[in-house]
Amino acid sequence: MNSLEFMFLGGAAIFAATGVLAAARQDMDLLSLIIIGIVTAVGGGTLRDLMLDVEVFWIGDPLTVSVAAAAAVLTFFLELRARVAERVLLYLDGVATAMFAILAAEKTLLLGHDPAIALVMGVITAIGGGLLRDVITGHPTVLMRREIYITPVLAGALLHLALRTGTRLPADTVVVASIVLAAALRVAALRFGWAFPTWLTYRGGPGNR
Amino acid sequence: MNSLEFMFLGGAAIFAATGVLAAARQDMDLLSLIIIGIVTAVGGGTLRDLMLDVEVFWIGDPLTVSVAAAAAVLTFFLELRARVAERVLLYLDGVATAMFAILAAEKTLLLGHDPAIALVMGVITAIGGGLLRDVITGHPTVLMRREIYITPVLAGALLHLALRTGTRLPADTVVVASIVLAAALRVAALRFGWAFPTWLTYRGGPGNR
Amino acid sequence: MNSLEFMFLGGAAIFAATGVLAAARQDMDLLSLIIIGIVTAVGGGTLRDLMLDVEVFWIGDPLTVSVAAAAAVLTFFLELRARVAERVLLYLDGVATAMFAILAAEKTLLLGHDPAIALVMGVITAIGGGLLRDVITGHPTVLMRREIYITPVLAGALLHLALRTGTRLPADTVVVASIVLAAALRVAALRFGWAFPTWLTYRGGPGNR
Repeated sequence: MNSLEFMFLGGAAIFAATGVLAAARQDMDLLSLIIIGIVTAVGGGTLRDLMLDVEVFWIGDPLTVSVAAAAAVLTFFLELRARVAERVLLYLDGVATAMFAILAAEKTLLLGHDPAIALVMGVITAIGGGLLRDVITGHPTVLMRREIYITPVLAGALLHLALRTGTRLPADTVVVASIVLAAALRVAALRFGWAFPTWLTYRGGPGNR
Repeated sequence: MNSLEFMFLGGAAIFAATGVLAAARQDMDLLSLIIIGIVTAVGGGTLRDLMLDVEVFWIGDPLTVSVAAAAAVLTFFLELRARVAERVLLYLDGVATAMFAILAAEKTLLLGHDPAIALVMGVITAIGGGLLRDVITGHPTVLMRREIYITPVLAGALLHLALRTGTRLPADTVVVASIVLAAALRVAALRFGWAFPTWLTYRGGPGNR
Repeated sequence: MNSLEFMFLGGAAIFAATGVLAAARQDMDLLSLIIIGIVTAVGGGTLRDLMLDVEVFWIGDPLTVSVAAAAAVLTFFLELRARVAERVLLYLDGVATAMFAILAAEKTLLLGHDPAIALVMGVITAIGGGLLRDVITGHPTVLMRREIYITPVLAGALLHLALRTGTRLPADTVVVASIVLAAALRVAALRFGWAFPTWLTYRGGPGNR
C-alpha cells in the first residue's frame, strides 16, 4: 500500500467518525451508525463514479468499507460518550474533504473530461457523503447551514484546474498544493468562524414566504 | 446550436430559477443556491441517464451546468427580492417540465426500450430534479403536495407513446403535440387550481395513524 | 415464468403495498401513492444494479413496475381504509426483505465480487427501497427507528456467504436456508418486540448535544 492509499483510507476513517458524531441521536443502534459511517465515507465517491460511469471505487476494494465500519464502531465506543476529540475531528474532516475533492478533480481530468466537469465532481465527492448522511438521518444538509464548507473546496479545485491546464507543473505537486489551500481555508473558516458576506446571503425579501 | 438545444438550455435555466425560488430560505448563501439550481436543472435527466446506462447528458456538455449556474445567480440578484415574476416562472416551469418529460420518453424509445419504460423515464426526468432539490433542502416533495403536477406529464407521455407506437406520424410532430398537451394541462391546473378528486385522494380511514 | 420469478413479483407487490401503507398521509393522491409503491418495490434493486454497473433489473422487465403499480392501486382501494391486514403485510414484508437481500447477495457473488461486497449489496437491496420512500415522503428512515430490521438481513446474508464460500452445498439450498433464517429472525423480532441491547444503543453522553 503506498502513502496515497494509506491517506485515502485515513480520510475514509475520519469521514466515518465525523459522520457518526454528526448523526448520532438518542436510541440509534450500533448497526445503523455503522451504515451511516460507511455512507458518509464512501457516498460522495460513489455518486462521482456513478456519474463518470467508472467502476464504483469500493466495489473492487472492500477495504475502504471495512475501515469505515471499524472507524464507526470505534467512534461509538470511544468517542460518542466523551466527544473530547470532536473539535479535532472537525479539523481533520476539513483536511479529508480537501483531499477527496482534489483527488476527484484529478481523476476526472485524467479520464479526459472538461475542467468544468472536474470542478463539479470535486464538489460532489466532497459534500456527497455528508449530504446523503444528513438526508437519510433527517438533518439539515450542508446547503442549509450557514457555514463555510463548500467554498474552500471550490477554491482548491479552481487552483488545481488553473495549474493543471495553465502550467506544466507536475500533477503531484499541483494536487498537494491544492489540497493544502482547500484544507487551510476550511480550518481557518472553522477557527475564525467565517461566514458568507450578507450581500451573498438570502435575507428574505418583500415577497418572502 | 439548433433550436431544440436552445430550448433545452432555456428549460434548464427555468428549472434552475424556479429551483432557487422554491428552496431559498433565510441565511442560505449564494453558493448553496447555485448548487440547488444546478441540481434542479439536471437532476431528473441525471437519474434517467444513470438508469438507462447511457452517458450522463451534462458530462459531455458542461454548457448545461453553466447555464443553470448563471440562471441561479441571476435569480438570486434579480428575482429573489422582488419575486414579481414568480407566477410567470411557474407557468414556464410547466412548459419546461413537459418538454423534458417528452424528450426523455422519446430518448428512451429510440434506445429500443419498452413503452412502459419510456413512460417511467418521462416521469423520472420531469420530477427528479425537483424531488432531489426538495430532499436536500428539507422541503415536502411534490409527492406530498396536493397539486396537479405529475398528471399532465403522464397524459402527455401517454399521448406520445400512443402516437409513436400506433401511428406513422413523424416523431417531431408527435413530440411537439405531446409537449403542448402536457404543458397546457399543467398551465390549466395552475390557472384554475385543479386538484385530484376526493375519491382518488387519501382522506385517512378508520385505521389511520 | 418459473417459481422464483413468481415469488420475486410477489415480493415486489408486498413491498409496494407496505410502502403505500407506510407513506400514506392525508391528502396524498393515488398517483403519488403509485409512484411511492413503485419506488419502495424497485428502489433497493435499482441502487444495487447501479453500483454493480449491470442493467437495472426492471428496465428489461417492465412487468415488475406494473405489478408494483397494481399492488399500490389495490392497496389504496382495499387496504388503506381498513388496514385490517397491515400486521400480516408487515410479516410478509419481512419475508420479502429476506428474499430480496439473499438474492442480491447471490447475484453479487455470481458476478465475481468479494463476499464483503455481496453483504453490502444484500443490505442495500433490502433497505434501499424503504429508505428512498421515507426520504421522499419525509418520514424517519429505518436507520432512525428503534426496530430490529437490518440485523435479520445481516444474519441471513452472513449465513449465505459462510455456506457459499465455506461449503459445497448447492447454491439453491443455501439461498433458501438463508432466506428462511433472515425471515424467521425478522418475524420473531416483530412478534416479540425485540430491540437492540442498551450497550449497543446510543443513549446520549456527557457531550451529547
